[in-house]
Amino acid sequence: MTQTVNDHSIKLVSEYFKSLQNKIISCLEEEDAVSQFSIENIATPGGGVSQPRVLSEGKHIEKAAVMFTHSIGATLPDAATERKPELTGKPFQATAISLIVHPNNPYVPMTHMNLRFFIVSGDEPTWHFGGGYDLTPYYPFEEDIIHWHTTAFNASGEHYRKLKAECDDYFYLSHRQEARGIGGLFFDDWVEGGFEKSFSFVKAIGDSFLKAYQPILSKRKDQTFGERERDFQLFRRGRYAEFNLAIDRGTKYGLQSGRRVESVLASLPPLAKWTYNYPIEPNSPEEKLTEYFLVPKDWI
Amino acid sequence: MTQTVNDHSIKLVSEYFKSLQNKIISCLEEEDAVSQFSIENIATPGGGVSQPRVLSEGKHIEKAAVMFTHSIGATLPDAATERKPELTGKPFQATAISLIVHPNNPYVPMTHMNLRFFIVSGDEPTWHFGGGYDLTPYYPFEEDIIHWHTTAFNASGEHYRKLKAECDDYFYLSHRQEARGIGGLFFDDWVEGGFEKSFSFVKAIGDSFLKAYQPILSKRKDQTFGERERDFQLFRRGRYAEFNLAIDRGTKYGLQSGRRVESVLASLPPLAKWTYNYPIEPNSPEEKLTEYFLVPKDWI
Repeated sequence: MTQTVNDHSIKLVSEYFKSLQNKIISCLEEEDAVSQFSIENIATPGGGVSQPRVLSEGKHIEKAAVMFTHSIGATLPDAATERKPELTGKPFQATAISLIVHPNNPYVPMTHMNLRFFIVSGDEPTWHFGGGYDLTPYYPFEEDIIHWHTTAFNASGEHYRKLKAECDDYFYLSHRQEARGIGGLFFDDWVEGGFEKSFSFVKAIGDSFLKAYQPILSKRKDQTFGERERDFQLFRRGRYAEFNLAIDRGTKYGLQSGRRVESVLASLPPLAKWTYNYPIEPNSPEEKLTEYFLVPKDWI
Repeated sequence: MTQTVNDHSIKLVSEYFKSLQNKIISCLEEEDAVSQFSIENIATPGGGVSQPRVLSEGKHIEKAAVMFTHSIGATLPDAATERKPELTGKPFQATAISLIVHPNNPYVPMTHMNLRFFIVSGDEPTWHFGGGYDLTPYYPFEEDIIHWHTTAFNASGEHYRKLKAECDDYFYLSHRQEARGIGGLFFDDWVEGGFEKSFSFVKAIGDSFLKAYQPILSKRKDQTFGERERDFQLFRRGRYAEFNLAIDRGTKYGLQSGRRVESVLASLPPLAKWTYNYPIEPNSPEEKLTEYFLVPKDWI
């Protein structure tokens, strides 16, 4: 798209993603106060690298995965190019940070964040950024959601409405006719204003993630809860697994492109429950989740 | 395919499926000795009926779903006709019994069975049977697996080799390069010898299911187990959820055709675990599961 996009661009973006990964890991370890992330550095076929960081069974975080991946591929798989079939089979590179946090406490929402840069080689390289972040609460507090969306708005500015709407569209379980969570930001094929401007935009979003999530984690992680809340959390995590396994394009792409399965599926819940005809009482907080919070609305 | 296949055929098959459903339910309730199946009779769009029977949190059975469904559809959805695109959009009927059993005890394998009759209306109706059964153990006993496959062989006779091979092919998690279980029987597009003969074949398979499963359930349900075995069972159930949500054609068809989601996804495990880099000790029973039992072989 512009002359300036080349291997050096990939390096710049990768360095940013890796520094963001470190920042997020430090923050989550501090919040957990007990457990640390495991460290692996895995060479991938074609000369790429996968740097998974996973925290398991912490005091406050049941599972967090913060993954950096730089993929180098000889031939682009189908799932990546459904909308651009002319690119199928071409050599490509992708660099990405991807994270999920499954907290112990049902009052802390789980979250997902992903930022990626994608380039198909050639005389005129085709590239774009993609990503975003979204929040999946079980027992939401309205003020937390307003804070989440306000932070997302501050990071994305004039683009917020569009990215918020795309997030609501994408994270939707059509078979349940239900939103996955309360949304956030989602963008794909992002080339707006060329590489420099797009990269700045992506950095603004990346830098805003902890501002959006940490205050909520910090404020709710010691909230008292019982069997009922835990049970509902495990049940709702089933919905999350349904989305990731049956719907998510990123997961399909990851599995098709032969990426390491443990990394691709690290997002799946540490523990999840499928209860047939789960009983939801009228006017309960559990009903309010689906009837009020998961209905897309203007939060700010 | 033959003049004799009509609404009366659907009725005959439905009656057999419903009597088999009752037989299986009685047997499972007797084995559980504590819990009963819930009973629902739900009219479905187009004049069909769904009769889900679900047992939850029993003494020996953590979740069992034995579903009878008669679907009547105005237009055949895509997923049903990937191999026969010329049928897309035509009116159809399908009658089916489908079951899963998730036992409490990790020494009892979980199982899945499905039998279905499918007919596309028209001057020359197109019809076929499909189905089979398979077993997914966590800590298998070789004698149980030999019993399972011997029973399957006795029911399917000369067709056993083919149906066993198709089962191994179908229940395979390509992203894990791993079989879902130790197999059984699988057939689709079955019209062999015309309606009468095909129906007899399907009845022989249906009638053999309890002979195959009940002795294993009965023999292993009181086996002592600990945290380790329970943990591994929950972890392996994650694989089952991966298959059903990301791979299974029946699930895709069910969700696409607008069938009741609670019925379609009743197969999902009551509780499942995704542990990153699950530690498998060399020469452990857990290693033996994947390295020996889940490698397709001739069991009889």
